[in-house]
Amino acid sequence: MKNTVYIISGPAGVGKSTTSQRLVQQLNKSAYISGDDVSHIPVNGRGMPWLDQDTLDLTWNNISSLTKNLLDYEYNVVIDYVAFPNEVKWLSQQLRNREVRIVYVVLMVDKETIKFRDRLRPEGEQMGERSLILLEEFDNDTELMDKNKLYTHQYRVEQLSEIIEEILKNDKYLFS
Amino acid sequence: MKNTVYIISGPAGVGKSTTSQRLVQQLNKSAYISGDDVSHIPVNGRGMPWLDQDTLDLTWNNISSLTKNLLDYEYNVVIDYVAFPNEVKWLSQQLRNREVRIVYVVLMVDKETIKFRDRLRPEGEQMGERSLILLEEFDNDTELMDKNKLYTHQYRVEQLSEIIEEILKNDKYLFS
Repeated sequence: MKNTVYIISGPAGVGKSTTSQRLVQQLNKSAYISGDDVSHIPVNGRGMPWLDQDTLDLTWNNISSLTKNLLDYEYNVVIDYVAFPNEVKWLSQQLRNREVRIVYVVLMVDKETIKFRDRLRPEGEQMGERSLILLEEFDNDTELMDKNKLYTHQYRVEQLSEIIEEILKNDKYLFS
Repeated sequence: MKNTVYIISGPAGVGKSTTSQRLVQQLNKSAYISGDDVSHIPVNGRGMPWLDQDTLDLTWNNISSLTKNLLDYEYNVVIDYVAFPNEVKWLSQQLRNREVRIVYVVLMVDKETIKFRDRLRPEGEQMGERSLILLEEFDNDTELMDKNKLYTHQYRVEQLSEIIEEILKNDKYLFS
């Protein structure tokens, strides 16, 4: 049976981590890659991934290598990271010789919700303007298809299981 | 100039993380790989790395892939993990086509110190018997050369910088 790589994307503060971690728990033989954690492996001499192309490329190379190894060991993989369509396309190229389904979900919310959720974070972890800039980048990305967007502001936390069901069952999120 | 991969090993509770994190801060363009973090990427369906060979192999494959990528981007790499000589040999084989120095340091302490330090950890993170078993495994490993051992029970925390100097300056820790 084909294994699946789930890419859970979207702007900061949209609920990527919560959604990804719940998703990984629902899957058999599953692994969780936090893109943020991977981007923090370089310590001295790295740039901010969103400002420095080299650091961003290294992060994606690391995510790709980990994903390949995990697929070799027959894991389903959940990647939790700000991933734009061109990056997902690059990753799918890296995996082109493998029997694998790639599911790409961009969690989206409206501006007010994202501002509200960001203020709930611990002070050092608040994204501020960065969240809104990312939201606009996703909104304006002409390669991003509507079918890959999942609007969550109508969901409440208690309905997380419905979001997970949607990601697991709805084939429209398959990346192609 | 050749970059360096530092493997900071030793039983649980010996100070690998503290030492590794200080070391990575002292190096230019440096990256930190926590073997424990890497071993936790698989979530459902993994075994304990010390009981399940597949899980341990996957962890080392992931560490190796990350290290190769980081070397491609010209980082020095600090690996913080319980690493035995046969594992270091395997990793050095994976890196054989590269210009790289491999420094292998096994931090060691006596039994009383390791028991004492383990009790200082938060309850959920205490290793108990596991620390002592690992200490004996390192003591009894016939492939482990004395030159790669660094006894730290005579050092106090304030002397961490001396340990770092020792690791950086003393060529006897080079793996060969």
